[in-house]
Formats: sequence, C-alpha cells, structure tokens
Amino acid sequence: DTIGNARPTAVNLLWAVQRVRDVAVAGGDVATIRGLALQEAHQIIDEDRDACTQMGLHGMKELTGINKILTHCNTGRLATAGWGTALGVIYAKAAAGEPVKVFASETRPLLQGARLTTWELNDAGIDVTLMPDSSSATAMTQGKVEAVIVGADRIAANGDTANKIGTFTHAVNARYAGIPFYVAAPLSTFDVSIATGAEIEIELRPAHEMTRWRSEPTAPEDIPVWNPAFDVTPAELITAIITEVGVLKPPYEQSIRTAFESGGAK
Amino acid sequence: DTIGNARPTAVNLLWAVQRVRDVAVAGGDVATIRGLALQEAHQIIDEDRDACTQMGLHGMKELTGINKILTHCNTGRLATAGWGTALGVIYAKAAAGEPVKVFASETRPLLQGARLTTWELNDAGIDVTLMPDSSSATAMTQGKVEAVIVGADRIAANGDTANKIGTFTHAVNARYAGIPFYVAAPLSTFDVSIATGAEIEIELRPAHEMTRWRSEPTAPEDIPVWNPAFDVTPAELITAIITEVGVLKPPYEQSIRTAFESGGAK
Repeated sequence: DTIGNARPTAVNLLWAVQRVRDVAVAGGDVATIRGLALQEAHQIIDEDRDACTQMGLHGMKELTGINKILTHCNTGRLATAGWGTALGVIYAKAAAGEPVKVFASETRPLLQGARLTTWELNDAGIDVTLMPDSSSATAMTQGKVEAVIVGADRIAANGDTANKIGTFTHAVNARYAGIPFYVAAPLSTFDVSIATGAEIEIELRPAHEMTRWRSEPTAPEDIPVWNPAFDVTPAELITAIITEVGVLKPPYEQSIRTAFESGGAK
Repeated sequence: DTIGNARPTAVNLLWAVQRVRDVAVAGGDVATIRGLALQEAHQIIDEDRDACTQMGLHGMKELTGINKILTHCNTGRLATAGWGTALGVIYAKAAAGEPVKVFASETRPLLQGARLTTWELNDAGIDVTLMPDSSSATAMTQGKVEAVIVGADRIAANGDTANKIGTFTHAVNARYAGIPFYVAAPLSTFDVSIATGAEIEIELRPAHEMTRWRSEPTAPEDIPVWNPAFDVTPAELITAIITEVGVLKPPYEQSIRTAFESGGAK
C-alpha cells in the first residue's frame, strides 16, 4: 500500500503493485508468496520491455518523415525496463538509421530533461540539444522542431493525459505552431475508470524544489510557491497516442475502448 | 559604443546612450561634456520615472476588475528608475487599494522572476506566488490567473514584441485560455525603424547558464544547448500595449504611428 500510493497522479506503480499482490495472495507460506511475487515482477519487466519495443516500432511508423523532435522530462532507459516510451520512438528511429535531432526541454523544477534525457541520448549517440521549457513556442514556430512526443503518467478514458508539468504548455504551443503532438504510453498507463482528466489528482510538490537547487538558493526562502508536479493535456490537443497495441487516434473514447476490448487490457 | 551595443535585442540602452552622446557632442572641453552628459542622464531618469507612473495609471484603468495577474521576468523597481513597466501596473493597482494577487514565473535560465520579482513584490507587501514557467497553461485554464502582463525589450512598428524568453509561450497559452495578454513599455522601447519582429536580432546566451546554477551542475557539462535570451511575441497575440502616452490597441501599425506622431516620440 505504501509503495502503491506513493504518488497520487501516476497509475503504473499502483497497477504493478496490484498485479504482484494479486498473484502473491495465492501463495500460502512466506517463501511461496515471495517466489510468486518475484516471478510476477520479472514478468512485468519482460512485458514492459516488449511494450517499449512495440511502442517504438508503432511510433516510428507514425512519425515517418519527422526528424526534429521535442521531448519533455525523461521517458527512456532510465525510466522503463526497455528503451522507453517517448524516447523509445526516438531510439527506434535511430536504430532504423533515420536521422534524428532531439530537443530536450529541461523540465523544471527537477530538471529530468536536463539531467537525464540529455545524458541518456548523448550516451546513445543521438543528437540532443538542451533548451529551456519556456522556449517551446519559438522552437516550434521557427521550424526547429517538427513534432512533440512525450510520455504519460495517467490517461483517462477520453484521452486526457496527465504528464510532467509543462506538457500541457508544449501541447498548446504545438497546436499554435501547427505541428503534431504525440503521447507514447503503454496500456498500463490508461485509467479507463475515469471519464476525463478532471478526475486526476495532481500532486503538489514542496516549495524548496523551486527555491533551491541543491546547495544554491534560486529564490527568496520563504516565498509562496505553486509547484504542481503534473498537468493534464486535454485530448483535443493530442494528435495520437502511441501504445504497444497500436496508434490510437481521436475520437479517443472509441479508440481506447477498442484497444482494451481487443485483449490489450491487463 | 561598447555600452550601447552590449545587448543586441533591447533598444532602451542604445536609445539612452545616443541621447547622452547627442547632447554631449555640443560641449567643448571635457568638463562641459561631462556636465552635459550627466545632466541628460538625470533628465532620462526623471522621464523614466514619470513614464513608469503614467504606464501604471493607464494600465490600472485598462486592467479594471482583473486581480490575478501573471508576470514574467523582472520589470519593476529593480529594472527601471521608477516603479516599473509591467510591475508598475501592479504597483498602481496596489496603491489604489485594489486586491492584487501576482504569479511570478521563475524565468529560466537566469531566474529573474524567482530571484527579483518575488523579492521585490514581497518587499512591497504585494501577494506574490512563484511558479514554474511551464505551468502557465494550467494556471490560465484553471482560472488561477486572469491576465498576463509583461515588459518589452523591443517593439517593432507592427507591435511584434521582443521580450525575455518564455513571453511568447505565455502569450500562446493566454490565447488558448482566452485571457488577455498585455505588454507595458515606454515609447523608448519601440523601434519604429523595423517593420516587424522578424528583423529583431535575438541574443544567444552561453551554455553554462543552462548546465550550471552557480556552483551546482544542472545538466551534463558538454551537452549542446540552445539558450535564446529573448523571443518575439507576434502582435496578433497582444491584447494591448500600455505606454506612458496611453493604451495602444490593434491594429498596432496605426496606433503606434499615432502615438509617435502626437509628440510622444523622442
């Protein structure tokens, strides 16, 4: 319960904990429970790796001809059991020999884009440039990026997508600039029990994330801070959602329902 | 020349240097030149203070009924000879006893919003909350802010406005959310010699501003960085431009020309 409820916005963690728990309760003694839990955890790892691969391949096809891509936060090898969700699509394109130029927005306040995504892509030999989150309107309207691809923390039955703070702002700017905005996420990220994103609780994080960076102050210490960790991008701004079972298009109520009914649901 | 050309995007500095130089060349010996230059500099200070006051009063009238305001970067007592441009409007509202709640976006990478604006408004007893730049779409669509007001570094003859990076992104989000977006700037910020913002040179700043915060790294050291210090907000996204001679409305070609012809031009 502690692990499953650690983060109120994302659903993957709770979903995985529930899978392990559901299997484990079938065991009798502690050793059997432990064995079943571990086996299920390994199974989840294998499935996640496969889902990443499939998302990458579906996304690569969907993003044919698009080479300059903006991504936000971190969604790759450091965040999944495979090559990632949004970054998986980028790895798939690179693996296929396509030229790929990535812009990573730094992702304030915890800088996952600056610290993790740039490191990970650079390490993989993929062309990556760091930019401020706030420069997205300029990057998009100047043709520096041709598409946005992000991951997700929770997707409602209508396609509304909770993801790292800044995602919604990128989506609004993409719409203004007339470039596509993609979400890449496995079915375990969907929460079809909620109709829209309005039902998603947004985790508010401590002020010190905004007023200090490690040992260095970034703002007056006692200033009031509004630090939401996530935002909800309305489905109307999302060009497509790339999953392991295929690319879902609007209207999402229908495409998401079909994806789950066709056996993808876990 | 060194001071006047120190920053390629903003025009106030060059404008002020030229004014001082134009007056000083009339002097003969060094002492006279020095006296004339100093006198003109003091004159500019007085005019800037007055312009701030007038912008505040015009802006207060324009923003009647709007109390929750997002601002970006720093445009107040720390940035001008008076109470500021965009912040001047906020000070004017506060001085008139209106309830004002300000959201300051932190303004990456140099954090002028986080370091300066929050300090300045808090010091003046004005309700201010710090937020990430990237949270603007959420703040605007949730009704946390009812309007955006920013300063400017250069305004073209058609109203296109260069200002701190992130301004354009806020403007796009304001349009999406259906809230007004204001620029407050003295006439010395207008560059009517250029037709549109396409002619404004954008200063690119060093990578280390994005890869370090003081003593602490924020990204891998050698990662490529795109760090434009400013962006250009298209006039079509600007609800009005608040100046010391009044509030300019679209079409800006006409309202800006009228403002300069009516004797406001220096």
